[in-house]
Amino acid sequence: MDVKIALLAGDGIGPEIVAEATKVLDRVAEKFGHKIEYRPALVGAAAIDAVGDPYPDETHAVCLAADAVLFGAIGDPKYDNDPTAKVRPEQGLLRMRKSLGLFANLRPVALFDSLADRSPLKAEVVRGTDFICVRELTGGIYFGRPQGRDEEGARAFDTCTYTVSEIERVLHVAFRLAVSRRRKLTVVDKANVLETSRLWRETAQRVAREYPEVAVDYMFVDNAAMQIIRQPAYFDVIVTENMFGDILTDEASVISGSLGMLSSASVGAEVALFEPIHGSYPQAAGKNIANPMATILSAAMLLEHLGLDAEGRAVRRAVDRALAEGVVTEDLAAPGEKARSTSEVGDYVASQI
Amino acid sequence: MDVKIALLAGDGIGPEIVAEATKVLDRVAEKFGHKIEYRPALVGAAAIDAVGDPYPDETHAVCLAADAVLFGAIGDPKYDNDPTAKVRPEQGLLRMRKSLGLFANLRPVALFDSLADRSPLKAEVVRGTDFICVRELTGGIYFGRPQGRDEEGARAFDTCTYTVSEIERVLHVAFRLAVSRRRKLTVVDKANVLETSRLWRETAQRVAREYPEVAVDYMFVDNAAMQIIRQPAYFDVIVTENMFGDILTDEASVISGSLGMLSSASVGAEVALFEPIHGSYPQAAGKNIANPMATILSAAMLLEHLGLDAEGRAVRRAVDRALAEGVVTEDLAAPGEKARSTSEVGDYVASQI
Ligand SMILES: CC(C)[C@H](C(=O)O)[C@@H](O)C(=O)O
Ligand SMILES: CC(C)[C@H](C(=O)O)[C@@H](O)C(=O)O
Repeated sequence: MDVKIALLAGDGIGPEIVAEATKVLDRVAEKFGHKIEYRPALVGAAAIDAVGDPYPDETHAVCLAADAVLFGAIGDPKYDNDPTAKVRPEQGLLRMRKSLGLFANLRPVALFDSLADRSPLKAEVVRGTDFICVRELTGGIYFGRPQGRDEEGARAFDTCTYTVSEIERVLHVAFRLAVSRRRKLTVVDKANVLETSRLWRETAQRVAREYPEVAVDYMFVDNAAMQIIRQPAYFDVIVTENMFGDILTDEASVISGSLGMLSSASVGAEVALFEPIHGSYPQAAGKNIANPMATILSAAMLLEHLGLDAEGRAVRRAVDRALAEGVVTEDLAAPGEKARSTSEVGDYVASQI
Repeated sequence: MDVKIALLAGDGIGPEIVAEATKVLDRVAEKFGHKIEYRPALVGAAAIDAVGDPYPDETHAVCLAADAVLFGAIGDPKYDNDPTAKVRPEQGLLRMRKSLGLFANLRPVALFDSLADRSPLKAEVVRGTDFICVRELTGGIYFGRPQGRDEEGARAFDTCTYTVSEIERVLHVAFRLAVSRRRKLTVVDKANVLETSRLWRETAQRVAREYPEVAVDYMFVDNAAMQIIRQPAYFDVIVTENMFGDILTDEASVISGSLGMLSSASVGAEVALFEPIHGSYPQAAGKNIANPMATILSAAMLLEHLGLDAEGRAVRRAVDRALAEGVVTEDLAAPGEKARSTSEVGDYVASQI
């Protein structure tokens, strides 16, 4: 198979971790007889520095022409203490999501047997946890207008808005996922306060009739924030709106205790995008110490998305082997054990394909 | 001292747990030579049933005439599956907060030595946790207008809005609290996406100059949702807007593993209100099994708020004694130990004053 992958390495450790993922992908291509072509493109602070725009038109064109996008990370400390800077890396991220129509963000919350004791939760609480969060990614208060200040600047406002069709399409993604899993869907909203949440709930109640095999429950977002820690094993698929999803997916990502291992997919109208859930970790940039596993596993998700299931499995098995053998970066190294470099981990995983 | 307390027992277990708190307060009054007068008033589903309004004018008048309000819980399952019911208990709650000007909700996240092993977090993660969340309670997307649907009903919208003065007054509450504690304040927002959050951050940066002794840091809400579980001991005081506060305070309440022990205060313009953070627990209503401790500790906060520090301390000591002696309801009873009833726990705590 011929595969065209847009490579958006981005900022900080982005380039290093994406390089390890392509190393692994190359080995997969060799082994399984595929041809992978990479198209690098600028995004984030790196793109602002180079061309003054965090998501240049050219990058957009590269993404549209690709079969899938592999994304590293964006964000640079020089923007962190000035949220009002005119041009910011995050704007590029949001513009990319919107213009690529990436309306559903999928985040599996996975536990790795060999990392079980790294969770901040007790073993008996975390046992059996295996769920996916589906976060709506192109609507809600992230994109609603009007947004701004009144004339004197003494009042600011944001608008949260959803249409029925925006809600329906992401619900279908979540319901289909539930059908392919344990057939349980938790719809998270704040229908006791928000009109948009009431529209979500009504729409979910209607769409649910198309999936009679799925057991649906409804949970207020504050309660969900509690239950994700109290009984994470309760969940199978969670679906929610953009801002609630931002908060709950990050909360959920802590459960496994191995942030550096978690990958995500964003799917939608045009093309799908795969990325580690962690950030650009600027303190580690250029040091060859960052954990490339989440990006390598994002590449596995990418392969599976293209229907290359055996290839995806091969990558996951190779990652498991690296974990079992202790070939891991410093964030995962057991006390007293030698930490490997980013590229050593990538080399090892590739060698195990 | 003569104290007038408005008693808003509300729904479910509300009446039972409030009765135990007044039992303890009566003992305090006797012991310390105070005169406490209670003014019961309707709120929540109970008020809808009685007079068709979840927060009747008469209740408002009773609150305004009181030195403080002791609140039980509201919520009734008959409203739970119909978020669009015309009259709902929650509306009463929101109207009460707004009309009493309760703009700051304070929630201590307390660990109880004798309950340390109940946390879902590992002992080494939770150790040393001692922080307070200050949630803005009368602004943001809870109250912003316009809120509604477009004509065809295919689009819903909510408005998040804050003025500088709304932000300032709750920030001052949080800064003063930090000054009285470990002098550390974490301002939580989503300034990389929301205009209201940018106004929060700018305002916080300005107000911070009035409190040079307080170390301030800024955290995005998604990151805060992670850090509250990863390193809860990091925090001293957290301040945030209404919706983020709703989510983060409930998340934080799980840390101690003893929801039935957590109390909160809402302060503002007119009168302060004290309540357990748990809900109306309808399954337990009328069974004399609910844990009254959170309400009893809310009464302790109430006493302290009125300047009766020794009295508040006496209540806390009595609660500690009950815990140490295992005089607890079923939610806290050790495996194999006898659980006490709601009223037995109240009796015991009162007897220890
Ligand atoms: C960087 C930020 C705008 C972004 C978001 O809030 O969506 C990030 O937190 C994420 O979850 O991908
Ligand atoms: C019942 C609901 C409206 C309320 C809120 O969201 O404020 C509750 O969750 C709370 O935190 O007191």
